[in-house]
Amino acid sequence: MRISVLGGDGYCGWATALHLSARGHSVAIIDNFIRRQWDHELGVQTLTPIRPLAERLRVWQQLTGRHIELFSGDVSDYEFLASTIESFEPDSVVHFAEQRSAPYSMIDRKHAVSTQVNNVVGTLNLLFALRELQQDCHLVKLGSMGEYGTPNIDIEEGYIEIEHHGRRDVLPLPKQPGSFYHLSEVHDSNNMMCACKIWGLRATDLNQGVVYGTMTDEVILDEALINRFDYDEVFGTVLNRFCVQAAVGHPLTVYGRGGQTRGFLDIRDTVKCVELACLNPAKPGECRVFNQFTEQFSVMEVAKLVQSAGRKLGLNVEIDHLPDPRVEKEEHYYSAKHSKLVDLGLHPHYLSDSLLDSLLNIAIEYRDQVDPSLFLPQVNWRNASNKRERQPLVPEAAFAAKA
Amino acid sequence: MRISVLGGDGYCGWATALHLSARGHSVAIIDNFIRRQWDHELGVQTLTPIRPLAERLRVWQQLTGRHIELFSGDVSDYEFLASTIESFEPDSVVHFAEQRSAPYSMIDRKHAVSTQVNNVVGTLNLLFALRELQQDCHLVKLGSMGEYGTPNIDIEEGYIEIEHHGRRDVLPLPKQPGSFYHLSEVHDSNNMMCACKIWGLRATDLNQGVVYGTMTDEVILDEALINRFDYDEVFGTVLNRFCVQAAVGHPLTVYGRGGQTRGFLDIRDTVKCVELACLNPAKPGECRVFNQFTEQFSVMEVAKLVQSAGRKLGLNVEIDHLPDPRVEKEEHYYSAKHSKLVDLGLHPHYLSDSLLDSLLNIAIEYRDQVDPSLFLPQVNWRNASNKRERQPLVPEAAFAAKA
Repeated sequence: MRISVLGGDGYCGWATALHLSARGHSVAIIDNFIRRQWDHELGVQTLTPIRPLAERLRVWQQLTGRHIELFSGDVSDYEFLASTIESFEPDSVVHFAEQRSAPYSMIDRKHAVSTQVNNVVGTLNLLFALRELQQDCHLVKLGSMGEYGTPNIDIEEGYIEIEHHGRRDVLPLPKQPGSFYHLSEVHDSNNMMCACKIWGLRATDLNQGVVYGTMTDEVILDEALINRFDYDEVFGTVLNRFCVQAAVGHPLTVYGRGGQTRGFLDIRDTVKCVELACLNPAKPGECRVFNQFTEQFSVMEVAKLVQSAGRKLGLNVEIDHLPDPRVEKEEHYYSAKHSKLVDLGLHPHYLSDSLLDSLLNIAIEYRDQVDPSLFLPQVNWRNASNKRERQPLVPEAAFAAKA
Repeated sequence: MRISVLGGDGYCGWATALHLSARGHSVAIIDNFIRRQWDHELGVQTLTPIRPLAERLRVWQQLTGRHIELFSGDVSDYEFLASTIESFEPDSVVHFAEQRSAPYSMIDRKHAVSTQVNNVVGTLNLLFALRELQQDCHLVKLGSMGEYGTPNIDIEEGYIEIEHHGRRDVLPLPKQPGSFYHLSEVHDSNNMMCACKIWGLRATDLNQGVVYGTMTDEVILDEALINRFDYDEVFGTVLNRFCVQAAVGHPLTVYGRGGQTRGFLDIRDTVKCVELACLNPAKPGECRVFNQFTEQFSVMEVAKLVQSAGRKLGLNVEIDHLPDPRVEKEEHYYSAKHSKLVDLGLHPHYLSDSLLDSLLNIAIEYRDQVDPSLFLPQVNWRNASNKRERQPLVPEAAFAAKA
């Protein structure tokens, strides 16, 4: 199958592109490297030393004989995006090419606007390109479980049957996203639903949970293929950040009471879910929704799992409760369905001691690279504008200040 | 009360600005005149000869002694928008400054993208400006009943209590908009809901029905104050368009079977509803939703009302069924609530013979200005790109071609 991976240089995109290539699909990566630019803007770095994409692709080809095509450019540029569709003629387009950090979108007005414009325009461009050039191509769009917020009812996979005043309909599940980033994903989802209805496009909207881990069967093959491992407060997902904090002896930074419950999944399941969606496309006119996660945990549960795994490795892991910089419920009902990908054949990698050991060991391996000043939240949802004033600290001073 | 009217040079905005001024409020208009530019782009004109805004405002002041302040600029330009808030210090901001035509947004990709970017960025800018500069100001945002689509259940005013698997929550009513314009309004609504929650802003989201009429107590005072009367397929609302068609002897252009049912209101009620919302502001943190219409009709019912009123004036009014250029249900359940504005004191002007007479008489008065080539739909929802190739026809040829 011919599959374009938009955003294939990013955290999930890179692992997915390699997995699809390893499985024998013809893969093209479309990327403009803006994710690397955001690192420079924020003064942050992935813990793991990722290589330039050209080198990654060269090594992949040397190791496996498999060629991944590369189109360098921005999906906000319609002529560029359309040219990749015309040239590569994909059967599926997997769309990771979005600004995906909630804190980034909440820095200030410019970051909120750029996040929404980038994400909405990119997805609109893609919908139009498919309609104009590749009508039968299946769009597999990465979204977020955060689109739903935390309703007091079960979270179905995208749609819900509602009975009201004696009448019934199956309608999109109401969404209450809590950041300008998550709002942009809701905008995309609504645009996609309409495009499928009016144009007969086929789409799968993957509402993904919080991803953890960095290794997959493919990135582990060579140091040059290593994936991102973000631990900063803006792009670092919570479990990865906790492991790095544990490795350097920094207290785990739980926001508020830590009762915030979310869906989680291993990056090895991300890549598998995307392939399953591609191999089992939506029907023409259908915009189906899969909730892409395997287990749900509260943030406090995640912290305790890391604490326990760290102690087994001889690490002294403390848990710190910071005032929650986000506006969210710190305790709430949460029960989200996630059976559709399992029905298609997903065998989840549940969060295990061995995975936590592996993550902690990666963090320990690269602990000299860790900048603890990146741990503490500097983006407060309640402010219209946040100054991210980093005060690079030597580790000892950082911990002393917190004691 | 100090009230800014964003988009105060447009159809609803102009009538509203005058009404608020007449009622003794201090009014500022913020506008960049892009609505007049769209006329030039599309090669269309309002039937009624509207004057430049500066002249309108001068005449208003001469007639009434009331001064309306004018800020010329684009709400997409944050520094400009913020400067108007700082300078005018409004108690309420009424936000009409959006691209509001569904067909315009469906012309092609560029029109879809420009509609969504313009509307989303303008509203985001406004939310940030209020948060930064005028936290207590009440945002009164015009949206559309079209945001809801046509669900098979009653349409509540914004929120619905859902019981699901034995649990309950009050959630935003699911929306299924059918055009890139209506989607942009849903994006705005979602952004507003979140901003109220995280920042404690106060907002009223007015989901307005199809507006008809052109005269209010204020615009009728002088020819120089006359309001827009759009009858073209892109910006003309359906009842206004039918009246113009009847006046020139063109068959009424019903799309499909005409069972499409929508909420309607007289522009005299638009201006009253907006004032009622301003006088009774939302609470801090509240994003309330009012369905702003007074009666619901199917398109076919509207056509028959115009036919009957036209015949009484001696007009020969035929009804033509064109293939529906939109993707929408031609027959469906429709029952939308609209009691909240009545509870605040709205006394609706229901659609009456005298109103239809008045509309038809305006159309007859200006019938020499009518360009019948603007009646026929040239934007088909099913196409990713529509060429609007106008073939200016002499009226006889136009009608012969249709016979």
